[in-house]
Amino acid sequence: MNFIQKLKDPFLSQVADLFPFDFLSQSSEDLLLYGKDWTRVYVPNPSAIAFPRTTEEVSQFLKLCSDHQVAVVPSGGRTGLAGGAVAVQGEIVLSLRRMNRLDAVDELAQTVRVQAGCVTEAVHQHTGLHGLTWPVDFASKGSSQVGGNISTNAGGVKVIRYGLTRQWVLGLQVVTMKGEILELNGALEKNNTGLDLRQLFIGSEGTLGIITEATLKLTRTPGELDVFFFAVDGIPKVLELFQEVRKASFSIMAFEFLTKNCLNLVTQMRGLKAPFSRDYSAYVLIEIERNRALNTESGGKNFEDQMESWLATLFEKELVLDGTLAQSPRDARDLWSLREGISESLSMKGRVHKNDIALPVSGLKNFIEEMNLLFSRRQLGLEVFLFGHIGDGNLHVNTMMPEGMGQEEFERICDAVDLDLFSLVQSYEGSVSAEHGIGLLKKNVLHFSRSPIEIALMKDFKRILDPQGLLNPGKIF
Amino acid sequence: MNFIQKLKDPFLSQVADLFPFDFLSQSSEDLLLYGKDWTRVYVPNPSAIAFPRTTEEVSQFLKLCSDHQVAVVPSGGRTGLAGGAVAVQGEIVLSLRRMNRLDAVDELAQTVRVQAGCVTEAVHQHTGLHGLTWPVDFASKGSSQVGGNISTNAGGVKVIRYGLTRQWVLGLQVVTMKGEILELNGALEKNNTGLDLRQLFIGSEGTLGIITEATLKLTRTPGELDVFFFAVDGIPKVLELFQEVRKASFSIMAFEFLTKNCLNLVTQMRGLKAPFSRDYSAYVLIEIERNRALNTESGGKNFEDQMESWLATLFEKELVLDGTLAQSPRDARDLWSLREGISESLSMKGRVHKNDIALPVSGLKNFIEEMNLLFSRRQLGLEVFLFGHIGDGNLHVNTMMPEGMGQEEFERICDAVDLDLFSLVQSYEGSVSAEHGIGLLKKNVLHFSRSPIEIALMKDFKRILDPQGLLNPGKIF
Repeated sequence: MNFIQKLKDPFLSQVADLFPFDFLSQSSEDLLLYGKDWTRVYVPNPSAIAFPRTTEEVSQFLKLCSDHQVAVVPSGGRTGLAGGAVAVQGEIVLSLRRMNRLDAVDELAQTVRVQAGCVTEAVHQHTGLHGLTWPVDFASKGSSQVGGNISTNAGGVKVIRYGLTRQWVLGLQVVTMKGEILELNGALEKNNTGLDLRQLFIGSEGTLGIITEATLKLTRTPGELDVFFFAVDGIPKVLELFQEVRKASFSIMAFEFLTKNCLNLVTQMRGLKAPFSRDYSAYVLIEIERNRALNTESGGKNFEDQMESWLATLFEKELVLDGTLAQSPRDARDLWSLREGISESLSMKGRVHKNDIALPVSGLKNFIEEMNLLFSRRQLGLEVFLFGHIGDGNLHVNTMMPEGMGQEEFERICDAVDLDLFSLVQSYEGSVSAEHGIGLLKKNVLHFSRSPIEIALMKDFKRILDPQGLLNPGKIF
Repeated sequence: MNFIQKLKDPFLSQVADLFPFDFLSQSSEDLLLYGKDWTRVYVPNPSAIAFPRTTEEVSQFLKLCSDHQVAVVPSGGRTGLAGGAVAVQGEIVLSLRRMNRLDAVDELAQTVRVQAGCVTEAVHQHTGLHGLTWPVDFASKGSSQVGGNISTNAGGVKVIRYGLTRQWVLGLQVVTMKGEILELNGALEKNNTGLDLRQLFIGSEGTLGIITEATLKLTRTPGELDVFFFAVDGIPKVLELFQEVRKASFSIMAFEFLTKNCLNLVTQMRGLKAPFSRDYSAYVLIEIERNRALNTESGGKNFEDQMESWLATLFEKELVLDGTLAQSPRDARDLWSLREGISESLSMKGRVHKNDIALPVSGLKNFIEEMNLLFSRRQLGLEVFLFGHIGDGNLHVNTMMPEGMGQEEFERICDAVDLDLFSLVQSYEGSVSAEHGIGLLKKNVLHFSRSPIEIALMKDFKRILDPQGLLNPGKIF
C-alpha cells in the first residue's frame, strides 16, 4: 500500500463536522514542524496535523481514518533519533501536544496518571513537589513527552539504577486504529490475569496503537548525589572497575564511560578545563546516592569513612589512576557535561555517523577489541568516538567524517562499515538499537538482532491490531 | 475441539522411534503425580508424561504433537494454585524436570542462564556462592521451577522490594507448538528493536509456548535483615503506617499485614507465643535491610540512632501501638511464621475458600470497608481471614467454612459471594488474580478484570502462536 495521499472530501468535510475548528491544520509551518523528529535524514511530507484534546477525539478520529483508509503517524515531543515519528508518505500526523493533563499525585500509591502529551520534565516538576519522581531521565526531557517515552521504552543515563521506562509504567490507555479504547492494567502493581498486553505497546513505536494516558509509577526523589570522575587505564579496566563498584553495595545512579578523544573534544569545543593534568586512555563518571552507601560489613563506620576506604581500595587495586569528586553542585554539573556534552560537541565539530548498540555485558571487552580491529583494519582514517552507559552494555559508537572526505563517500563508507559492525554485534548476540528504537532508520538492519520468526510474529501482531496497516506505516518492520 | 484423546499408533511408534526409551511414561504413578498441581479441585487425567532433556527434544516433540493433533500441558514444579498445569482432558503432560542445567554465574553481568526445570531454591544456592541472588522468593521455592515462575510471573513476599518475576528475566528461550525455537533478548539489558515478545510469554501460563531456558538477572544478596512486628489500630492505620515507612527512605524488603483472627489462629495451631500481651485489631510485619536505611537529612547519625528516632516517631504519631524487633535469626523466623503460617493453619483448622485479589493501593481502605460490609450484610456466619502483601495492593481473602455447614452449601455460598466480591473488585478496577494466575480456576471470572476487547486480543495472539489450540488447552481463555 502506498500512503502518498491527498486528503479529499468526504474525509475533510467529516473532520470539519465532527471536530473543533482547530482540530486539523494544514498550515505550512505546522506541516514542517510536526512532520519530523530529531532524525535529520528524512524529508517530512505530512498531509495534515491533527491536534486532539481528549481520548474520545483520538478514538473518533482514528475510526474515521480507518473508514477512509487514511494513514496516521503519532507524534510526541519529536525528539526521536530513528525516524519513528516522521511522516514521509503523506500521512496525517496526530500530535499529542494538547493532551497534557496531569492528575493529582497519589502519595500513598506513589503513582500519577497523566495524558500522553505531558512533557517529561513537567512530570518531574509535578511529582517533585511530593518528594517523588518518575525516574525516566535524559538530555531531551525538556521536550520529550510521556507517550513517546513509553512508545520507545526510553533509556537514559540512570538505567543502571532504575531500569528502562517499561519498569515505571503501571497502566496504559491505548486507542487502536479501529478506534477501540483499551485500559490496560490501570493502577495495579500485581495483576496476573492472562497476557500482559500493556507490555506489547511499550516500545512498539506507535505501530500498534496510540498511547493516550498512562499511570506512572513513581519513586522517592534521590537524596544528595556524589559525582566522581575517574581516569582509567583502558577498557578492560573500565569493566573491572564496574564489577568492583557493583560489589561495593553502593546505590549507583550512573556508570558512564568515555574514551580519551571524547574528553579532549568536549573540553576543546566547550572551553572546559580538563579534570586531570595529563591524558588517560579512558574515563568513567560514577554517580552515587549520598548516605545510601553503607554495606553490611561496615560496622559502625559512617558514610565518609566508608567512602574513603572504598576509594583507597580502587587506587590500591589500580582500577583507577586518578580521580576527582565534585565539591559542589556546579562541580557536579561540570563533570556531567564532560559526558553529556559529547554528542553536541561531535555535531559542532563536523559530520558524524551515529550508532547506538548494546552487547551482553560479559561480551563487552572482546567485542570492543574486535570492533577496534575492524575499524583499524579497514584503514579508512575514520576516527571513532566511543562512549556510553557501559554498565547496561550500551555503547554509542560515533564516527567522525575525516577532513577532505566528501559527504557522499563518507556515507557510503559508513554504510559498508555498519554491515560489518552489525554482523559483529550479531555474532555477540547484541542489539543494533539499544535505546533509540528502529523507526525508519534501522529498519533495514533489524534482522541482525531479531530472527525471521520474530519479525514474522511482530507483523502478525501488528496485523491483528491494525489490519489495514494505517498506523505509523513503514516503521520497524 | 475436545482433547479427550487416546494415544495411538502411528504417534506412539514415532515417539518410540525418535526419542530415548524413557522419554514417555504412561505408568499410573507418573500419570497421577504429573497430571496435577497444588490446586486440589480437578481430577487429573493425562494420557502420558513426556520427560525431555533438551530444547531440541521439546521442539521435535511439539512438532510431532502438532502433526498428530495431540494436546500438551507444560508442567514445572506443580506448585500452582489456579490449575494452570493440570491435565484434565487427556493431554500429554510435558514435564521440564530433567531440564535442570545451571550454567556458570556471570559475575560481571550479574546473570545466569538456566534450563526451565531448575528448582527456584537451587538457583538461589547456585548464585548465592557468588554473593548474588535471583530475588524471586516464596514459600514453595523448594519445589517451584524457573519456567513455572516465569510462566506465571510469580510474586511473593519480596515484591515490594524487587518487583515481580518479570523484572528479573533478561532472556527467554521458548518453543512454540509448531516446534519453532525462539531466542528472545538473550542477555541484553537494553534492546529496543521492535516488539518485546519476551514480555508476552511471561505470565502467559504456558498457553503460547514452552519456556525451555532463561537468562536470569541477578542482584546482590541482601545484607542482614531487621524484622519488626507491629500492633496497629485497624486497616486505615496500616495504610498510614505504610505511607510513613515508604517516606523513611529505608530499603523495605517486606510489608505484610494480617488481622487479629489470623494471628490468633496461627499462634493456636502452631503453639507459638503471641508477640504481645493483649490483642490488637491488625498487625504488620516489616522487614528492612540493615545498614541500608540512612536518609539524607540524617547528617552523621549512624544506623542505630536513626532507627531509634524513626521508631519513636511511629509511636508518637500513633501509627503503631506496640512493637517488637527480632533479636536473633530465630526470632526473625518466629515472627515471619506468624505471617507465613496462616495458609497452612487455615487448612489445618478446616475447609477454606481462597481468593487472591489486588486493588490499586489508593483504593484499599474503602475497598476493605465495603468488602467487610458485604460479608457482614449477608449474615452468613462466614469468618473472613484477611492478610497479604498490602504494600502491593494484594489481599488474600480467606473464608473459613463454619462448623455445622455442609461442604456443598459452603461452596455454593462462596461462589455466590465471589460474584459480589469480584463485582466490587471490578468497580475498584482491581484484579481477580493478583499473583496466582487464571489457569482453569479463575477462567470464568476473568471478565471482571479484563475487557471483552482484551480477551479477544489474547485469543488472537494465542491463535497466531498455536493455531490448532493444542498447547495448554482451556487455560486462561
